[in-house]
Amino acid sequence: MTTTTKDDHCTLLVQCPDGPGIVSAISTFLLDYGANIIESSQYTSNPDYGTFFMRIEFCCMNLMEKRTNLEAGFAKLANEFSMDYRFSYHSEIKRTAIFVSKDPHCLMELLWEWQNGDLETDIACVISNHETARGVVESIGIPFHYIPANKDIRQRAEEKQIRLMEEYDVDLLVLARYMQILTPSFVECFQDRIINIHHSFLPAFVGARPYERAYDRGVKLIGATSHFVTNELDEGPIIEQDIERVDHRDDVTDMKKIGQKVERRVLARAVKWHLEDRVIVQDNKTIVFR
Amino acid sequence: MTTTTKDDHCTLLVQCPDGPGIVSAISTFLLDYGANIIESSQYTSNPDYGTFFMRIEFCCMNLMEKRTNLEAGFAKLANEFSMDYRFSYHSEIKRTAIFVSKDPHCLMELLWEWQNGDLETDIACVISNHETARGVVESIGIPFHYIPANKDIRQRAEEKQIRLMEEYDVDLLVLARYMQILTPSFVECFQDRIINIHHSFLPAFVGARPYERAYDRGVKLIGATSHFVTNELDEGPIIEQDIERVDHRDDVTDMKKIGQKVERRVLARAVKWHLEDRVIVQDNKTIVFR
Amino acid sequence: MTTTTKDDHCTLLVQCPDGPGIVSAISTFLLDYGANIIESSQYTSNPDYGTFFMRIEFCCMNLMEKRTNLEAGFAKLANEFSMDYRFSYHSEIKRTAIFVSKDPHCLMELLWEWQNGDLETDIACVISNHETARGVVESIGIPFHYIPANKDIRQRAEEKQIRLMEEYDVDLLVLARYMQILTPSFVECFQDRIINIHHSFLPAFVGARPYERAYDRGVKLIGATSHFVTNELDEGPIIEQDIERVDHRDDVTDMKKIGQKVERRVLARAVKWHLEDRVIVQDNKTIVFR
Amino acid sequence: MTTTTKDDHCTLLVQCPDGPGIVSAISTFLLDYGANIIESSQYTSNPDYGTFFMRIEFCCMNLMEKRTNLEAGFAKLANEFSMDYRFSYHSEIKRTAIFVSKDPHCLMELLWEWQNGDLETDIACVISNHETARGVVESIGIPFHYIPANKDIRQRAEEKQIRLMEEYDVDLLVLARYMQILTPSFVECFQDRIINIHHSFLPAFVGARPYERAYDRGVKLIGATSHFVTNELDEGPIIEQDIERVDHRDDVTDMKKIGQKVERRVLARAVKWHLEDRVIVQDNKTIVFR
Repeated sequence: MTTTTKDDHCTLLVQCPDGPGIVSAISTFLLDYGANIIESSQYTSNPDYGTFFMRIEFCCMNLMEKRTNLEAGFAKLANEFSMDYRFSYHSEIKRTAIFVSKDPHCLMELLWEWQNGDLETDIACVISNHETARGVVESIGIPFHYIPANKDIRQRAEEKQIRLMEEYDVDLLVLARYMQILTPSFVECFQDRIINIHHSFLPAFVGARPYERAYDRGVKLIGATSHFVTNELDEGPIIEQDIERVDHRDDVTDMKKIGQKVERRVLARAVKWHLEDRVIVQDNKTIVFR
Repeated sequence: MTTTTKDDHCTLLVQCPDGPGIVSAISTFLLDYGANIIESSQYTSNPDYGTFFMRIEFCCMNLMEKRTNLEAGFAKLANEFSMDYRFSYHSEIKRTAIFVSKDPHCLMELLWEWQNGDLETDIACVISNHETARGVVESIGIPFHYIPANKDIRQRAEEKQIRLMEEYDVDLLVLARYMQILTPSFVECFQDRIINIHHSFLPAFVGARPYERAYDRGVKLIGATSHFVTNELDEGPIIEQDIERVDHRDDVTDMKKIGQKVERRVLARAVKWHLEDRVIVQDNKTIVFR
Repeated sequence: MTTTTKDDHCTLLVQCPDGPGIVSAISTFLLDYGANIIESSQYTSNPDYGTFFMRIEFCCMNLMEKRTNLEAGFAKLANEFSMDYRFSYHSEIKRTAIFVSKDPHCLMELLWEWQNGDLETDIACVISNHETARGVVESIGIPFHYIPANKDIRQRAEEKQIRLMEEYDVDLLVLARYMQILTPSFVECFQDRIINIHHSFLPAFVGARPYERAYDRGVKLIGATSHFVTNELDEGPIIEQDIERVDHRDDVTDMKKIGQKVERRVLARAVKWHLEDRVIVQDNKTIVFR
Repeated sequence: MTTTTKDDHCTLLVQCPDGPGIVSAISTFLLDYGANIIESSQYTSNPDYGTFFMRIEFCCMNLMEKRTNLEAGFAKLANEFSMDYRFSYHSEIKRTAIFVSKDPHCLMELLWEWQNGDLETDIACVISNHETARGVVESIGIPFHYIPANKDIRQRAEEKQIRLMEEYDVDLLVLARYMQILTPSFVECFQDRIINIHHSFLPAFVGARPYERAYDRGVKLIGATSHFVTNELDEGPIIEQDIERVDHRDDVTDMKKIGQKVERRVLARAVKWHLEDRVIVQDNKTIVFR
């Protein structure tokens, strides 16, 4: 018996109007190509007339040789069911750029998880409007680009950033506490491909200084939210959220420290799930096949 | 050796400008009266020029006989340090009224905890603008009052309610999913004595239909918040909050069901802590000595 | 367009040696009968030579009329793939008996969830070796049977219990803090159909007096475990576990009170999942399709 | 008004037979020396005839000059009440040695928290029976000592380790996944000063290979436990525990990865609390004044 390698693995994401026969058609199609389904999840947004979503992880001997045929065959089936779909071959590692400002904790967590083998990606580069993180980033062999950024030079900064994203052929941008607002044209270039961490339990405390406002409100839990970036500030589709308990003894500084731990794990989870093609955006929400 | 009874126990809450000698003065005062400190917590809102808060649980042989003397003596000390304070004698059980509309889950949880001996209170009565809960309430021997209430008859309803609160000599009002807005004059009658449960993680989703709005926003956690009622809707001092995880498969109905479990435990905790004199309101926040 | 009713819904559980074509065969089979897949989950215990598990919820117009045909047809397919399988028609509500001793909290939680519409079952009866719960059980119209039980009269008690289970045609037995050990022959009668709640985080504190032992060990978290009953005490397949935080101030009584809250929710979840056919036993573990 | 500096701060831990007048005596004593109480916690193990425990954080102008007098004065008071006590001056930073084997995640978390200013300690050195961590440790300027260790050379290894502990004048030893058993004589040298992280929810899975055994048992939660090391394996006083959820899809490797996250935060919390003198050992338990 021959065993498959990582190159023979693929994740297929499908989205189409619900109706009879979809699962049968997809699974029979894969069977005909000799593919074995390893993991499969599905969701229908409304049992009566909704949208059907499916994530299938399959493996198939000599997948990369069959690839062209497979995709051509699937195109016909997709047409029949009006599917949006995407094949993600595991041999084609996604390329990630991390944007960071001064606070390094989210960047560090991502680098750590990556070094630990938990994030299936190539970290193409780190981009920052501060020099703070250069040392640690370069010490592990990742290119670091310092691009000054603020309100006045935003356009020029973004031009440089876009050029770098193209040069590095980046699939995913992670804003790991990057404290600059992005322009609509930048966001448009990378639709559903920019993941941000917001340091509050959205939709509470949209915008600036969430810990200060959480402190002023006297909340008993603080949170963090990872979401795709859209052109409405902190309003993009939420991927993951989590919280930690605080009490009356915690001042703003304490809340920030406690909050950092939540930010770290929430962002790391969201990035991991995205890299594993577990996240589908539907309108302003996400479906997360965990 | 003679042992003390519950009648010999008391909780003292103190609040005053911070300064040297407060703990020494209070603890020496109690010692002079033969009182033994059982539990004590303190908090200073700002180490340099803040407010000092203290909760002391003590017991003292024949406390009820010494009570008048003790209070007279403490009044002098309190004057010296400009203290606000309150003695809560454990022999004087607090009296609670529960307000409820149609959804019984929070009422049920409170009754249950009370029957189980976890809430140190007399439940004086249950008041509702619906007849739904009458059966279960009367079956355990608690008076139930149906007082219709809506925007148009609010004043009249509140007059009846206030009269009942006086007749029953009530210390605490718990709004256990009571879906009517209270007028400023009603709230004024019971300052820091009305505890509400709001079915969201405040300050997210202030106001009506929080689960519907949480669903529309695509949040990954839903919460509940217990707070004192003030005249700004859902803006009163927060006592306790908690959350539960939801995902893309949960519709509004699911969220409500999951949320009920959070509401139940959050309200029960807040009421318990208040009854044990663990909660102090400071401006628009609470100090909770757990 | 005609819409389906609850009678047209069914959950199919399948288990067989893994291999190519299973999903395709099942989904195509269902399509041929006009069934629409609503929810589907699968798991393979080992990617290379493991066991394949699947849960499919489907609906099908006029299902109850097609039922005999459908099952006959599926039998052939099942034979081909060496499947173990079970059709659970939603029109055939499962029947549950609850066993309880003195502590009523788990019983109460189940009754509550059931009254709230969260447990899809008929509660056939409550059986107890104490009279404590009779009042509350009978007040909501459920038969209550007092069957004294202890070491000396175990066999006779179990004979009565088994007779009752047969009379009531019970599918599921829930031990909601029933503090009697069951004999192997009793357990055999109801394999994978008896769910127990153990008041510890198994495998810690197997056996009697877990809270006392947790207190003595100085743990910082206490837990509860819901599991299927087998003939090895507290060793059956675990369905669900959860914990709550305690600290040095909590004595055994406090731990029991805190633990009751965990027991309630852990047992309620396990029972709910079982009733929804989400739990499959594999050797001494469970697969839970949540 | 003159403000105090960190050098003027001190934490006092007291333990004595319970009785009247202790709080009064201590607080009056501190007042007489011009000390201001910043935070204070107390606990009595048994209300009737128990042991009294207290943690007081105070500040006092020119504390280091008054220190000798203060301690001499307190010695008398301590004698009167039969107190065990310890003054921890905040100017005297505790010195920590970290022991690690191959898995670096707990070491990394501690270094990170330390660099982030969250652990009030000097990290004197890192000791390992592997060379793995040398690079990262030396890169931040901390001495790294490779001391081979196994069953056969245990005594010699421990002699070297003890010598180093003396040279570095170490207060605390943290076993951050150090996979060697320590001899009784080593443990005796550092009573209540060695903190270990065990990769299970103790007392479940005492000893080796806890994740493998958790997997085999089919648990739904995995945990980690931080405890003081005694001569009974994994039986020392527990400081902190926490858990994370797993399900049937997680194999041993997944459990280890998930478990690492729990280990990291549980150990970091325990070390932080110990460094802040929040942990008192009583028999085989801990009192943690959080």
